[in-house]
Amino acid sequence: MSIGTLVLLRHGESEWNALNLFTGWVDVRLTEKGMAEGKRAGELLKEHDLLPDVLYTSLLRRAISTANLALDEADRHWIPVVRDWRLNERHYGALQGKNKAQTKAEFGEDQFMLWRRSYDTPPPPIEAGSEYSQDTDARYADLPEVPLTECLLDVVKRLIPYWESTISQELKAGKNVLVTAHGNSLRALVKHLDGISDDDIAGLNIPTGIPLRYDLEVTEDGSLRPLNKGGTYLDPEAAAAGAAAVANQGAK
Amino acid sequence: MSIGTLVLLRHGESEWNALNLFTGWVDVRLTEKGMAEGKRAGELLKEHDLLPDVLYTSLLRRAISTANLALDEADRHWIPVVRDWRLNERHYGALQGKNKAQTKAEFGEDQFMLWRRSYDTPPPPIEAGSEYSQDTDARYADLPEVPLTECLLDVVKRLIPYWESTISQELKAGKNVLVTAHGNSLRALVKHLDGISDDDIAGLNIPTGIPLRYDLEVTEDGSLRPLNKGGTYLDPEAAAAGAAAVANQGAK
Repeated sequence: MSIGTLVLLRHGESEWNALNLFTGWVDVRLTEKGMAEGKRAGELLKEHDLLPDVLYTSLLRRAISTANLALDEADRHWIPVVRDWRLNERHYGALQGKNKAQTKAEFGEDQFMLWRRSYDTPPPPIEAGSEYSQDTDARYADLPEVPLTECLLDVVKRLIPYWESTISQELKAGKNVLVTAHGNSLRALVKHLDGISDDDIAGLNIPTGIPLRYDLEVTEDGSLRPLNKGGTYLDPEAAAAGAAAVANQGAK
Repeated sequence: MSIGTLVLLRHGESEWNALNLFTGWVDVRLTEKGMAEGKRAGELLKEHDLLPDVLYTSLLRRAISTANLALDEADRHWIPVVRDWRLNERHYGALQGKNKAQTKAEFGEDQFMLWRRSYDTPPPPIEAGSEYSQDTDARYADLPEVPLTECLLDVVKRLIPYWESTISQELKAGKNVLVTAHGNSLRALVKHLDGISDDDIAGLNIPTGIPLRYDLEVTEDGSLRPLNKGGTYLDPEAAAAGAAAVANQGAK
């Protein structure tokens, strides 16, 4: 049996993307534009005949809604779905709910970029009981510990074992897998897939709402390796514009 | 651990409900009214503090969309979801796509009611390859045989073993379960739960979009029995009006 195709999809624009706020695990809604991006992603899947057999999604509404809209549009609303916190966005700690431009103005460019793009330096932890913390959220009740902040390395540590044990097994079984997730959980996965260094991952930005296709092969050690390194965006022009906008988020 | 609460929810009004057509396994969309019913169901769940821990749904869009809308409204969009064909509507055979009033006028009241409400007489089978058959539908590729028609007894035969092996186990494990399904798959389940006779089930109509709550106990033989026989609609007035409308569907 041939290996299934992997499609990664960052959620469409959320209310806090539009407001330029750090979001992390805060469970905000899609904007009208974000909903349109979800539908457009479904059209692209259909146009490219990339019909998923199973959906993996985070526990956050913006990814779940994007998947629902895309699958409905692609006529694949009926496929099995697995939701897991390991696909959640990076927890942004005390920055959750803060404006990106204000944070940059207050703390300076260097500190701002360190928090956004450092591989192993997390932002300051969020205070337990704060308006934007998740320490009493029912959906995380089974976690041994709810994160108070995360750097990208923390996301890699929670996500890659899950990728190896679960998602990659579906692909090896020949299933086409759609993963709807977030800017930083997808950066963590792409870093692993493409073998990007801890330094170089800082320069990688993933646009919202555009399916990114990976064709895979099994290596000698049994892991999955992309045949098309970096993946293939189903709408390359929109992806380039979207990635540039993500890179520029502190400037607004 | 106490037994979880069961909530049954028939999908909101579909495009073919509105057109008064026999639908069965044809995968039609919700109307605007149907979407509003889905949201309202979610409000009712929240108002009654009936927050599901897991969702079971059919493979049909009108049930899946209703569940998505209700769970999003109730802030439970993140719960695990299981989709299974055994929760599908009764397959309406050659009647799929036909107008209910025209069918009644053409075949007479007795034949019409026999097809709609007989326990063990299915409508004529749909022709393979017909516009409204499902014999090449990808979502049923794993079934040994795709039905060409079903009576309510056929639905009982496919649904109750699944109820016993799967859904009722979740309830016994203490989970609150939401089941979003269809007029006849829910009638089959309610018949089993409430011990309704093969004759009396003909008189039972389930309205669209109103959550029906069952509190359960385990009997000596290990099955689940309702403490509130017949269940409790979360909006009883709307449920009574809705059930009367379902009973009267041949008259339009």
